[in-house]
Amino acid sequence: MSETMKAAIFVEPGKMAVEEVPKAHLEKDDDVVVRVVRACVCGSDLWYFRGLSDHPRHSQIGHESIGVVEEIGSEVTSVKPGDFVVLPFPYSCGKCPVCKAGFESVCPHGGYFGASQAEYVRVPEADGTVVKVPGSPEDYDDATLASLLTIADVMSTGYHAAASAEVKPGDIAVVMGDGAVGLCGVLSAHMLGAGRIIAMSRHEDRGALAREFGATDIVAERDQAAIDKVLEMTGGYGADAVLECVGSKQSFDTAIGLIRRGGVIGRVGLPHDVEISAEGTFYGNIGIKGGPAPVRHYDLHAGLLDAVLKKEINPGRVFTVEFDLDHIQEAYEAMDQRKAIKSLIRF
Amino acid sequence: MSETMKAAIFVEPGKMAVEEVPKAHLEKDDDVVVRVVRACVCGSDLWYFRGLSDHPRHSQIGHESIGVVEEIGSEVTSVKPGDFVVLPFPYSCGKCPVCKAGFESVCPHGGYFGASQAEYVRVPEADGTVVKVPGSPEDYDDATLASLLTIADVMSTGYHAAASAEVKPGDIAVVMGDGAVGLCGVLSAHMLGAGRIIAMSRHEDRGALAREFGATDIVAERDQAAIDKVLEMTGGYGADAVLECVGSKQSFDTAIGLIRRGGVIGRVGLPHDVEISAEGTFYGNIGIKGGPAPVRHYDLHAGLLDAVLKKEINPGRVFTVEFDLDHIQEAYEAMDQRKAIKSLIRF
Repeated sequence: MSETMKAAIFVEPGKMAVEEVPKAHLEKDDDVVVRVVRACVCGSDLWYFRGLSDHPRHSQIGHESIGVVEEIGSEVTSVKPGDFVVLPFPYSCGKCPVCKAGFESVCPHGGYFGASQAEYVRVPEADGTVVKVPGSPEDYDDATLASLLTIADVMSTGYHAAASAEVKPGDIAVVMGDGAVGLCGVLSAHMLGAGRIIAMSRHEDRGALAREFGATDIVAERDQAAIDKVLEMTGGYGADAVLECVGSKQSFDTAIGLIRRGGVIGRVGLPHDVEISAEGTFYGNIGIKGGPAPVRHYDLHAGLLDAVLKKEINPGRVFTVEFDLDHIQEAYEAMDQRKAIKSLIRF
Repeated sequence: MSETMKAAIFVEPGKMAVEEVPKAHLEKDDDVVVRVVRACVCGSDLWYFRGLSDHPRHSQIGHESIGVVEEIGSEVTSVKPGDFVVLPFPYSCGKCPVCKAGFESVCPHGGYFGASQAEYVRVPEADGTVVKVPGSPEDYDDATLASLLTIADVMSTGYHAAASAEVKPGDIAVVMGDGAVGLCGVLSAHMLGAGRIIAMSRHEDRGALAREFGATDIVAERDQAAIDKVLEMTGGYGADAVLECVGSKQSFDTAIGLIRRGGVIGRVGLPHDVEISAEGTFYGNIGIKGGPAPVRHYDLHAGLLDAVLKKEINPGRVFTVEFDLDHIQEAYEAMDQRKAIKSLIRF
């Protein structure tokens, strides 16, 4: 294939580039190739951009995008060229017991995208993976396109935190993390009817968006001071549900400290040095659930796609800056330096 | 007080006695005193009987009983002398957010009984603790009294394992442990509609009762062989739900090995040296829930009391031998030596 496309390349920690690479193409009969319309940078991309976790150097990256189907493999039946689709960050068969139980993100036949910050992307197992959107991108305003982009990962991940934490109407929910996922966790807790939503945030812009998304209280304290504060706010009993959207030991230990006995911690932050006490959680009847978010399940079966299309929710508000692909370095830096909550890439 | 009563005494590992002790009496205004009609020995009592865990020597013990209210404190409003009651092993205020959420067993104002293998027992916080049964013990046959006794702990604990594991209609459930709790877990998974119930058992009598309670398969293998067997039985995907009713590292690790991705382990076995991998559970989206069973909640709000009274379930079948209090040593030995599944004490 002599055709090429532009793609973001992770060169080394702190350094991104844009290069011409072979254009994404069909490799298997159940693949589709999608022309990307919007992509973005994920908080999890910052781990290797900051050199805090390993990632192959000089490799394509990105796992959140929406776009238009360009080509389909011979076995694909659910979409055709020209269809508008959301691409969940996990791909999945859609047919096995794990997928049928609503956990496509851990489908043993699936995997994760790693090349969607690019003009085109190959989608494996398309029929079990893509989320079809009515019409075409031109039918939607920029705000709706931004919100559709969030249900490829960040909004669905926030929802997984809330659903895993078993947020129920009237609950007191605490959200650990004020990044885009945490903010979407606030919105999700609100969707599930939480009566009081306490967002842990010490950044004014994020706290403001948390309030817009439904937070009733903002707590700036950390560690024991944060635990004391939440216990004081809850008559000493703690929060019914905690959405753990960070993944650090510090955040998890705080979650354990402020959860009510019998409560559930829903965790979506990739765990780094987290330790779970088998005894402590048992004698407090504390539940621990969560993991990589089954995006497609929530988009289609928990109503996220519908809610975005009906403008009932506007999770795209987490994108506070926007770049073209040529400025991918700036897109990463804006998030790394906390100048932006989340960077959108427009094609 | 010069009145005395007979009570079981834990003398030292391997040795029980019956002694005359001061009769249980009201200490607080929200106490009641109950005349015990049936009590029993718990698998958890064997830990210190066997010298495997610490317990104060020469102390009264027992935490499962049913009986008749003898005296009530001045603040008690929900029962009167002569009422027939089940005494859940945890006592609880019944009014705080933890109790209202259905987790009376970890009520911060409550605690655990430790003296109900005796002719009389004092029940603290009676209004938030006891489960009233219509009529009097004389109205019921022995089988029903035995089943009522199980909803003071063992049946409710098995139910907590199943409810915590989120057993749903059609699920494949695995039950770790073939003691009385595990067997009640089988019955509970059956009540919740599991389509296939795999009981881990290598004792013929227990396996037979597991089948009577709804088990569809018995697996005698252990460790990796047990994991391999269940994976083979489930097309390689594992069980939707695991009821962990043992609490050992061996049992928990086996549970982790055979749970389906996205599944939940409901644990009720007191953890001994169990380790929970924060990463392993996260990347498999494995949920971990459970702890001491909120007995009263399940008795009243999950229908256990009704199901026993209507003879829809017969969990009392776990009692395979029966003693009077004077033979408490034999009651412990029968379980310790695995001659009995569970020993009932008749007064």
